[in-house]
Amino acid sequence: MKVIRDPVHDYIELDELALALIDSPEIQRLRRIKQLGFSNLVYPGANHTRFEHSLGVYHLARFLVKQVDEPGQKELLAAALLHDIGHGPFSHASEELIERYTRKSHIHVEELLKQGVISDVLKDYSLSASSIAKHIRGETHPGQIINSEIDVDRMDYLVRDAHYTGVAFGLIDHVRLIHELMFNENKLVLNIRGLQAAESLLVSRFLMHPTVYFHHVSRIAESMCAHAAEYIIEDEGLKPQVFRRMDDITFIMEMKNAGGYPAEISKRLDERRLFKRALYTGFDSLNVDVLKLRNNLKRIEKEIAESAGVATEYVIVDIPEKPHIPEMKAQVLANGNMILLDRASNLVASLEKAQLDNWRLGVYTPKEYRDIVGDAAKAFFEVKKDTKQFKLTDI
Amino acid sequence: MKVIRDPVHDYIELDELALALIDSPEIQRLRRIKQLGFSNLVYPGANHTRFEHSLGVYHLARFLVKQVDEPGQKELLAAALLHDIGHGPFSHASEELIERYTRKSHIHVEELLKQGVISDVLKDYSLSASSIAKHIRGETHPGQIINSEIDVDRMDYLVRDAHYTGVAFGLIDHVRLIHELMFNENKLVLNIRGLQAAESLLVSRFLMHPTVYFHHVSRIAESMCAHAAEYIIEDEGLKPQVFRRMDDITFIMEMKNAGGYPAEISKRLDERRLFKRALYTGFDSLNVDVLKLRNNLKRIEKEIAESAGVATEYVIVDIPEKPHIPEMKAQVLANGNMILLDRASNLVASLEKAQLDNWRLGVYTPKEYRDIVGDAAKAFFEVKKDTKQFKLTDI
Amino acid sequence: MKVIRDPVHDYIELDELALALIDSPEIQRLRRIKQLGFSNLVYPGANHTRFEHSLGVYHLARFLVKQVDEPGQKELLAAALLHDIGHGPFSHASEELIERYTRKSHIHVEELLKQGVISDVLKDYSLSASSIAKHIRGETHPGQIINSEIDVDRMDYLVRDAHYTGVAFGLIDHVRLIHELMFNENKLVLNIRGLQAAESLLVSRFLMHPTVYFHHVSRIAESMCAHAAEYIIEDEGLKPQVFRRMDDITFIMEMKNAGGYPAEISKRLDERRLFKRALYTGFDSLNVDVLKLRNNLKRIEKEIAESAGVATEYVIVDIPEKPHIPEMKAQVLANGNMILLDRASNLVASLEKAQLDNWRLGVYTPKEYRDIVGDAAKAFFEVKKDTKQFKLTDI
Amino acid sequence: MKVIRDPVHDYIELDELALALIDSPEIQRLRRIKQLGFSNLVYPGANHTRFEHSLGVYHLARFLVKQVDEPGQKELLAAALLHDIGHGPFSHASEELIERYTRKSHIHVEELLKQGVISDVLKDYSLSASSIAKHIRGETHPGQIINSEIDVDRMDYLVRDAHYTGVAFGLIDHVRLIHELMFNENKLVLNIRGLQAAESLLVSRFLMHPTVYFHHVSRIAESMCAHAAEYIIEDEGLKPQVFRRMDDITFIMEMKNAGGYPAEISKRLDERRLFKRALYTGFDSLNVDVLKLRNNLKRIEKEIAESAGVATEYVIVDIPEKPHIPEMKAQVLANGNMILLDRASNLVASLEKAQLDNWRLGVYTPKEYRDIVGDAAKAFFEVKKDTKQFKLTDI
Repeated sequence: MKVIRDPVHDYIELDELALALIDSPEIQRLRRIKQLGFSNLVYPGANHTRFEHSLGVYHLARFLVKQVDEPGQKELLAAALLHDIGHGPFSHASEELIERYTRKSHIHVEELLKQGVISDVLKDYSLSASSIAKHIRGETHPGQIINSEIDVDRMDYLVRDAHYTGVAFGLIDHVRLIHELMFNENKLVLNIRGLQAAESLLVSRFLMHPTVYFHHVSRIAESMCAHAAEYIIEDEGLKPQVFRRMDDITFIMEMKNAGGYPAEISKRLDERRLFKRALYTGFDSLNVDVLKLRNNLKRIEKEIAESAGVATEYVIVDIPEKPHIPEMKAQVLANGNMILLDRASNLVASLEKAQLDNWRLGVYTPKEYRDIVGDAAKAFFEVKKDTKQFKLTDI
Repeated sequence: MKVIRDPVHDYIELDELALALIDSPEIQRLRRIKQLGFSNLVYPGANHTRFEHSLGVYHLARFLVKQVDEPGQKELLAAALLHDIGHGPFSHASEELIERYTRKSHIHVEELLKQGVISDVLKDYSLSASSIAKHIRGETHPGQIINSEIDVDRMDYLVRDAHYTGVAFGLIDHVRLIHELMFNENKLVLNIRGLQAAESLLVSRFLMHPTVYFHHVSRIAESMCAHAAEYIIEDEGLKPQVFRRMDDITFIMEMKNAGGYPAEISKRLDERRLFKRALYTGFDSLNVDVLKLRNNLKRIEKEIAESAGVATEYVIVDIPEKPHIPEMKAQVLANGNMILLDRASNLVASLEKAQLDNWRLGVYTPKEYRDIVGDAAKAFFEVKKDTKQFKLTDI
Repeated sequence: MKVIRDPVHDYIELDELALALIDSPEIQRLRRIKQLGFSNLVYPGANHTRFEHSLGVYHLARFLVKQVDEPGQKELLAAALLHDIGHGPFSHASEELIERYTRKSHIHVEELLKQGVISDVLKDYSLSASSIAKHIRGETHPGQIINSEIDVDRMDYLVRDAHYTGVAFGLIDHVRLIHELMFNENKLVLNIRGLQAAESLLVSRFLMHPTVYFHHVSRIAESMCAHAAEYIIEDEGLKPQVFRRMDDITFIMEMKNAGGYPAEISKRLDERRLFKRALYTGFDSLNVDVLKLRNNLKRIEKEIAESAGVATEYVIVDIPEKPHIPEMKAQVLANGNMILLDRASNLVASLEKAQLDNWRLGVYTPKEYRDIVGDAAKAFFEVKKDTKQFKLTDI
Repeated sequence: MKVIRDPVHDYIELDELALALIDSPEIQRLRRIKQLGFSNLVYPGANHTRFEHSLGVYHLARFLVKQVDEPGQKELLAAALLHDIGHGPFSHASEELIERYTRKSHIHVEELLKQGVISDVLKDYSLSASSIAKHIRGETHPGQIINSEIDVDRMDYLVRDAHYTGVAFGLIDHVRLIHELMFNENKLVLNIRGLQAAESLLVSRFLMHPTVYFHHVSRIAESMCAHAAEYIIEDEGLKPQVFRRMDDITFIMEMKNAGGYPAEISKRLDERRLFKRALYTGFDSLNVDVLKLRNNLKRIEKEIAESAGVATEYVIVDIPEKPHIPEMKAQVLANGNMILLDRASNLVASLEKAQLDNWRLGVYTPKEYRDIVGDAAKAFFEVKKDTKQFKLTDI
């Protein structure tokens, strides 16, 4: 047993298997992938990495595994440690792009488990790469511990992201939550006594969304980064599979070396000269069914750019998915019956609707094009005249 | 300027006026009144007092006063420091009783400001006791800072109560909240940019209710204490006005010296041999309109006791008020318009309904009478047969 | 297993034996004994009790017991939970007095273990009261865990006292310390890898002494309390054995009921009208060998009072013991050899000498007698004329 | 005024001047320089940057400036914000090398203040670049606030480094420290009432040294990085002035692009395949006067490498400076007299000697050469046979 200092969980104990896996280049790479992409442009403390988050998930999984006392613990704990090795550079900033080009999300890691050091370690311990991959995809019964409605992944990241941003919303009672989770008919369920702890987790996530995860500054920087990546893939021939395995540093190199638009974006990110909001508005102000347009972003950007008379790559249209809260469908065990969390709690039931309040369509462009792109975008999205839009001054 | 260490706000600066007021017996008495009555029977760390809470409210009021830049600051800061001197022993445990007998709640303190050391200090600084009393009752424009929908009183107590209980729900961004409060047309309003901070405050309060403020163990101990007090007032001739000015220690002495029932209750509280829940149920299980019965508790207790064949003083009926959330009606300033907080936030709008989930009718009695009193109570309140009640085992 | 929220250790798990012991009046009494006596007069947050400290010591003992894997764990854990039941009212404030009259310190609790609920519980679990008593006195090999040079008792109280006072000096790495402790030849020893953690513990204790434990305001209030107690014992016939079993509240009642001097002291403590420092000085300023006078305090107070012309009970002479640091003699295991901690660390070696800097002789008296008693005290103790004394204004 | 969230100081307020300076590429670059170089290889949370530290120093300087009420505050606050722009990649890892080649340490930043955005901003506000440069070098009277024996620079970094490493040693009472600092005869001095706070700062620094700043793993990684940089400068013609202005990312690119030895080092750092300790020992075991050899490291490495039969670049000799503690000479004001801190405190006086306990000579080499390089190094440094060396297994 070795212990490692962690600012969130104090100490994390690692056994030999964990230490062997951590020594792999795949996990070491996570040291160079920021957990929150470009959120450090808003919250200067948010430089934490997928590496420490992975240790944290492993740590909480150990507690929960011990609590529910399931067989096959070694594979599950390996899955906890490895669950994020599929992330691309800057985490979520590259996610949509990678999915679009490779049809793989960050939870599809089976091939990575079957090669190199990880494969060797798994063989040494007679563990199955396929099983671990299934755990990571949440397709198995014990896999619910790390990937389901209420899992240790989000317990760790909510607390950790709050800790490093310094935001006051992430205090979750994970000890109580873990204490009240159990398996019932192959389903990970929450004892009703843990209801307040679960409510607290969901509210915390709800509050973190507009404040951190969807803060417009991070969202703009991430969109800029994704646009640069797409440019390099399309115009410079970077293979999406190679892009997916880069880390933050090697991708920044790639942008700088590419010259042109990607290098400009990199310099802008370095000097925090970001695109600005030309349009930023909620569902209420829109006459078009905006969610249907999510598959045609490139075309829309082109149309708005042409209408405004600026080059296409200087118009970024950002239409987030309609928010949904999978945790609402977590199972709660009350007086021997299983009910859904949003049935057990009126508070939880209200969160999905409340979340719509925070959804924003954004159109981003360099400062100097703000007005012309703003007008073109308002026309395109048929923004209602009489509704108040959010002020475009940065908070 | 003197600085005092505070575990919640780190350091609190006190000027000469504050120091002079603190030296009064009225404020020193608050050192001997626990902020959370008997919550330390559930949360062993909850031994904090009204004294330190008063310093904390003063501290936050200073920040807010500086921020809104209003005249008459000295009187307001005095009000912040003095706002809780009207509390009786064990804070809320004695509150209903005192109001019933004296028609005064803890915010009616004008007479206390017009006598003794406080009166002398106020005269020295040419401050008006009447104005301060009005501030404390929240009847003035600046008084909203310490007593209104979103005031520094609840900012301090939520954080402080969470800190000392160790509960994970009280992390409030009071810096942001204070930063976004301002006066608009004589009304303390919140800039929309502080919306998440306000949501967080309300959710925190929502979660603290069942977990701390209405935890059945504290609720039982407080009811026992109030019954002993009523017994002493009725049978031993203790004057309600004298009771109101006691502190925790002198009231415990009073119970012990009284002998009989009050002494028994005191011994039970000392040894944590509390009454148990004979009935504990939400609105859904009740066929009677229970809130209408709140004024006849004595009669109900008598009826249930007689029906069960136990002495009246061993049956305690606890019907809390219907929960309401005054903060919902706080004013929010968005794009130049004032709207109510529950209009600005779907989350807030849902809290009042959600709060009903946590309301409980309780009937408490010594362990040995649990079954007979439980049956009598169920009959009296027409508890529906087919609805599940909450398990009566202590959490 | 039941879990209890603790602000210091987050959660404390209690098994059935622990729960049964906690239900005894002896442990419940500790809820009414403040851990730091009158330190709340300086640090308003310091209202924590021996009860929560006892839970904390039990919690850390569980970790250490698991780590060193010794037999007889149940008795040791019982001892951890019970180790402070021998304390008198206001903890250390009553300690010297009780020892003087009863020849028993707070670690002599064998009789208390052999009666009432505790005795019943121990019998139910077939545990020996005598063994537990020996553990508490630190006379056994496993007893070193709770009472030796580096034990879980001081790990808990240093962190806890710092937490509640808000002082910045108590952050101790108890996880690392516990991780590096082991038994070697029946001696609890520290692996050299834990050296920095041990240094940190000692420095923390060193810094807590002048700032908290020997802060003059607490020291004055404690001396006043002890003088009132002695008065009641001598003049009112209170039996020392009865005094020893009181709690803070019943002793305050005793003072108030006694009238006269004790009631005056109680009122002064209530209103924070404390005696002041008439003399307050270190070793360097004294021409007499002051430590030799510790056994004649009553006579000295009388002499100074007569010389100053005030009543004896208004002169309090406070001569603390010469500071010593037992932790310095903890054993450290380095490269297979056992050495003493003060040999392994130059920092530790220097602390004992450094501690002398903070020692103070105090003579306390009501404000109005400060000058005359000060002069009499300076004459008595032959205070050097040319040395600078510490200013007598309160910090 | 804009407020920024900081995990250490909660909120940092920035005025217009600060915001303008922060927008410069020189300060934005600090976002890409890790505060603790490679300490994240030991403490996974230690990814914090010089950028947030600079904000923290500015924040504390504002408090201290307000407290001492000196003129010329704007220039001093600009200096606080800019004090670290002279750092090279990976902070201290590149420091010795840059000083050797450029004769400039990180506090020599005058040229940087006289060009680009910073120069423009300073002109806009009529501030003198030369004065600011002098403040940063600690050569002025107010400059002591950010660069002297007890300055806000170390107050921030000790707390911040402890926070992000998770180490328990960095809790410093900076509020008290700042409160007790004042100017006396143009010298920044500490009131004796802040003595314990100062002791705490020094002890914190003392404990952080072996645990964090001189942890052998960081020290090895930093030495490897410096050797790669020297190789690129010598063999690839990288100009030292250019190296000095790189950030962590661009220097990693430089290593990767250089191929050969630098690329190997970069890969080793990426995969955490570090050199190991072939020798690691304190002063006591050495017969040679090792500090005299500090200027001939290259020659020594060559000699040991030849004697062991390995290539020179695979032997790294690390001879840290003799530890000294400049804070010991801080001035303390006691009873109107100025004395040195190590005269006012026996604890402080002992720290310099104690610090020698933690000094280590290290010789590092790839795992496979450990034994042969170890033997050669022991011979070279005349390591005493009978003294015990520290075990070379990693903690």
